[in-house]
Amino acid sequence: MNTATFLINGVADAAISPLDRGFAYGDGVFRTIRVKNGQTTAWLEHYAKLAEDSRRLGLACPEVTLWQEDIEQLFADQADGVIKLILTRGVSERGYAVGEHDNVTRVAIRSPLPNYPPQNADRGIRAHFCQTRLAHQPLLAGIKHLNRLENVLARQEWSDPSISEGVMLDQAGLVVEGVMSNIFVRSGTILSTPDLHQCGVAGITRQRILDIAPGLGLTPIIASLTLDMLMEADEVLMCNSLYGVWQVVDFNRQTWPVASLADRLRQVLQE
Amino acid sequence: MNTATFLINGVADAAISPLDRGFAYGDGVFRTIRVKNGQTTAWLEHYAKLAEDSRRLGLACPEVTLWQEDIEQLFADQADGVIKLILTRGVSERGYAVGEHDNVTRVAIRSPLPNYPPQNADRGIRAHFCQTRLAHQPLLAGIKHLNRLENVLARQEWSDPSISEGVMLDQAGLVVEGVMSNIFVRSGTILSTPDLHQCGVAGITRQRILDIAPGLGLTPIIASLTLDMLMEADEVLMCNSLYGVWQVVDFNRQTWPVASLADRLRQVLQE
Repeated sequence: MNTATFLINGVADAAISPLDRGFAYGDGVFRTIRVKNGQTTAWLEHYAKLAEDSRRLGLACPEVTLWQEDIEQLFADQADGVIKLILTRGVSERGYAVGEHDNVTRVAIRSPLPNYPPQNADRGIRAHFCQTRLAHQPLLAGIKHLNRLENVLARQEWSDPSISEGVMLDQAGLVVEGVMSNIFVRSGTILSTPDLHQCGVAGITRQRILDIAPGLGLTPIIASLTLDMLMEADEVLMCNSLYGVWQVVDFNRQTWPVASLADRLRQVLQE
Repeated sequence: MNTATFLINGVADAAISPLDRGFAYGDGVFRTIRVKNGQTTAWLEHYAKLAEDSRRLGLACPEVTLWQEDIEQLFADQADGVIKLILTRGVSERGYAVGEHDNVTRVAIRSPLPNYPPQNADRGIRAHFCQTRLAHQPLLAGIKHLNRLENVLARQEWSDPSISEGVMLDQAGLVVEGVMSNIFVRSGTILSTPDLHQCGVAGITRQRILDIAPGLGLTPIIASLTLDMLMEADEVLMCNSLYGVWQVVDFNRQTWPVASLADRLRQVLQE
């Protein structure tokens, strides 16, 4: 079943201790990055985000060259695929206290590209309305950390393969993100994405879209997003580092006509 | 440094895959149990809680005899110590979706008893006022799951060895629990512990104390607990399955005289 290969602290035949704090407490951070011809997409942005997330949790992020050597070794065949990077606070004695001499655990995992239906990009996707609400936790908001039970619960809400993502609200009823994606809505020339200071993961592709929007004649804003604002938007988009951008054309008993923005954003992101 | 020994799915020289969902997402539950002369304390209560927490996350909890065999093997020397049991959703392909044929990972870890200062039981403890607030997430509240970053952050707030625990509030400012403990306050003959439907871990020792309180002439209640109620209480107690019960005698710039309830509860819990 498993087609992934991995390195742990740069070693190929290693494994994770059950005493690793990543396993015991989800005490760590991660990134998932698309690899094309052996090259990681937006690598410096991903590394900067990994380092920033590590800093917020008080983890010492290994230098960029160590991660690059892992990726080069796993993708020596220059193929396409996915690289997942995980950093944990390493092995410690039992208990929440962090020892003084703890060393981080650095993991790099190669996986094949997910086989999403090609029509997701061409014709848009159906999205599930998740009942699982995201908790407000400003200390962890924005970080791609290893405490992901909310996403696991949300993803378990549907098994219909014609549904490609789920839209998640927070405890206050505001729209935050997808289960594995960030979300944008376009209303006229305004391109909005939810504020993520209370919950959610601030993804690299979200930031890249915020950066390129003005070049496409759009005004990007970060703001609270109500469900009504989403339902009344001209276009609803989901994004992540693997699939790029999909338009949502079917959500919450409403449909939207296929429009051009998702396609234009994908093109710019791939340049 | 490490003095722990463990079994993974009953096997001694095994390890955790970095693709295990416990490592990737904290997708699992655990228990920490005191062992005396090779015997687990309150084992059936712990197993029932492990099974209930598993059910809430949709995990198939292995039958009780498998866990018992693990514990007997790790404590064949009939010694004292700590057994930690972890159950995860096992290895899966990358992504939040749960495969149909996933198998759980069962882990049992033996550790030495923590060397808490003996005066914690006799003279009470100092407790830190945690700035890390617990998020409201009713879908996960009460469960001892592997998403424990809030506890990790809270425990990092102090390093003074004369402080033995921290008191955690929720986002609404209500008192919920300790970093590794549940909390009780006594006012007259009323023994209160916080409601845990929004956040917190509903520990076995908490439940046992609720059960034995009437026999000690106390009326146990589960209710919202404000900081004022705690500060005005006659006694403040912390509890968990390893140390039993400690009285808090120094918290938030206030002290309490050493009283007898913690001692009496410890005695009943050990019977």
